[in-house]
Amino acid sequence: MKYNFNSGPSILPQTVYEQASQAILDYNNTGLSILEIGHRTPIFEGILDEASQLARELMGLSNDYEILFLHGGATTQFLQIPYNFLGASETAAYLDCGTWGTKAIKEAKAFGTVHLLGTSKDKNYSYIPKGYTIPDGIKYIHITSNNTIEGTQQNSWPEKNGAYLVADMSSDILSRQMDFNNFDLIYAGAQKNIGAAGVTFVAVKKDIISATVPDRHIPSMLDYRKHIDNGSMLNTPPVFAVYVCLLTLRWLKALGGLQAIEPVNNQKAKLLYDTLDTLPVFTPTVALEDRSVMNVVWIMENKTLEDAFLATCKEAGMVGIKGHRSVGGFRASLYNALPLSSVQALTDLMTDFAKKNG
Amino acid sequence: MKYNFNSGPSILPQTVYEQASQAILDYNNTGLSILEIGHRTPIFEGILDEASQLARELMGLSNDYEILFLHGGATTQFLQIPYNFLGASETAAYLDCGTWGTKAIKEAKAFGTVHLLGTSKDKNYSYIPKGYTIPDGIKYIHITSNNTIEGTQQNSWPEKNGAYLVADMSSDILSRQMDFNNFDLIYAGAQKNIGAAGVTFVAVKKDIISATVPDRHIPSMLDYRKHIDNGSMLNTPPVFAVYVCLLTLRWLKALGGLQAIEPVNNQKAKLLYDTLDTLPVFTPTVALEDRSVMNVVWIMENKTLEDAFLATCKEAGMVGIKGHRSVGGFRASLYNALPLSSVQALTDLMTDFAKKNG
Repeated sequence: MKYNFNSGPSILPQTVYEQASQAILDYNNTGLSILEIGHRTPIFEGILDEASQLARELMGLSNDYEILFLHGGATTQFLQIPYNFLGASETAAYLDCGTWGTKAIKEAKAFGTVHLLGTSKDKNYSYIPKGYTIPDGIKYIHITSNNTIEGTQQNSWPEKNGAYLVADMSSDILSRQMDFNNFDLIYAGAQKNIGAAGVTFVAVKKDIISATVPDRHIPSMLDYRKHIDNGSMLNTPPVFAVYVCLLTLRWLKALGGLQAIEPVNNQKAKLLYDTLDTLPVFTPTVALEDRSVMNVVWIMENKTLEDAFLATCKEAGMVGIKGHRSVGGFRASLYNALPLSSVQALTDLMTDFAKKNG
Repeated sequence: MKYNFNSGPSILPQTVYEQASQAILDYNNTGLSILEIGHRTPIFEGILDEASQLARELMGLSNDYEILFLHGGATTQFLQIPYNFLGASETAAYLDCGTWGTKAIKEAKAFGTVHLLGTSKDKNYSYIPKGYTIPDGIKYIHITSNNTIEGTQQNSWPEKNGAYLVADMSSDILSRQMDFNNFDLIYAGAQKNIGAAGVTFVAVKKDIISATVPDRHIPSMLDYRKHIDNGSMLNTPPVFAVYVCLLTLRWLKALGGLQAIEPVNNQKAKLLYDTLDTLPVFTPTVALEDRSVMNVVWIMENKTLEDAFLATCKEAGMVGIKGHRSVGGFRASLYNALPLSSVQALTDLMTDFAKKNG
């Protein structure tokens, strides 16, 4: 028995594994593996359409959005967004809340001006900066809704002041209810709550597309307009990865959608944070109001116990507890597919460990 | 029983399906699905290393090459190559042999000057232009070793005259022996002979990397140097797609490598071309010396028989016989994993159809 707290690629629902495994042997009694099915076929077009429609439905997105499944991961979006929307004489406002935001800013600076709305670098990105205002004349605002590595999550959104709002939701998309229609471009690497690694989800509003930088050559594969015109099939899409997204989206819908998953996610996070707050041997590092429901990070003040704790976790079949190599400490990722029972097993282990090592 | 002549995504070895299917339920008795395994783990690093080493071994590549598994498909390479290697005042020489070469040329023109070595557009790309020479001062030469859509294949390589040699080998890589060390950059969408859709294979020589355009900002995800420095893990790689590559490469090695697969591929192609040449109802469209061993295309002079032939194929469980939407007619793709028996079934069907409809 394994308890998978990986930060991504991460646990998916058991039914997704079973269906994906079967589809590789024989997709839906076609006599063909999902791996050998052409993308320009009614079969794959059906998969892509259904996945798009389910995402739209689960997020409550209006018809003003185009849904894309692209190559390249969220990291490609870091450059694709300014390539399309940040003219050389334009300014975009970025909020710097950690590793991924920092990378997004770095890519954007090559295309236009970046106005830094705020940064929590002063305290190791352990909180979300607040109280900033959006200056006039900003083309778009870029935020990271959840910081996978640092364990912070954003709960309020900037007043836009006429700017477009762009969000990297890689690590908390589909985990909670929100007004997704407030955003002009939402993107997410699939490998947390949407599916497996190898495909990027993008929901983009028609308005921002019409604000594409007019006087810049954009290579075809980086041009949202071309991907939209070709229905995510400008080139061969990552067929299997899209299929895994479809299976995961179906699972979430059958469960009752975001309305049903949000309280479960909150319950899982509460159980873990309560345990961390109770046991002095563990120290959560994130400001109370900014704690992520998806990625829970903590340290141990007594460094000599770190290895013993990791060994205890490993022995119990707990995977992915070590913090990101860039920050150290510990992290447990509690994505949609992780059952409450896994968190219970972890908190039991922690309580037991604290008793023995307190 | 299905006979899969798809042009890509296309048939993979049965053992690959079986192993991939099992790995989704439980990878190598780890208690984890391959879909939930982190990429920065000894498990995935082992997969990536072995796949790289096998590709290097099968192709006989020297240590001057870096092996990369990237996102984005060959279409992303169309822009990534000139982005890295074609300065605004430099010239690259392209051979235009069909749909993909044309697209590669279009992307390159945005970065520098394109010198057209030759084109077979005058005859619907039914042959490979020859007899061209490489002018002085060319930065790199770009060719497409096999034209998936048009069914032509290149068998001789240009004298380089000091230029780097770059090849899109998407549809015939690993299908035949050649001196791969003659090329400075080889790329291929995996979804034909290497694996499933969703990952791109790149072998790049250190020399050409050192000739990266010095005065141009290259976004991180498009910079070969960054991918090399990060061992194909600049961001989350398409884990499962890389694993399928590994399984397919292992299969090819166990079979005896390119030395063993090449004669089988030749035998399959000969059987089909001989049949086409024998039966007047079918007309191969490609110049004799340029016929592809991987993608065999033909038309039927009597258009009224086309639908009947397609229906006969469908009834017999033959998939992917219809020509590409851009050229019409018919095509059978005979990649490494397609058994000779499938080609025999197709030629038997054709002979029978010709008898009834001759």
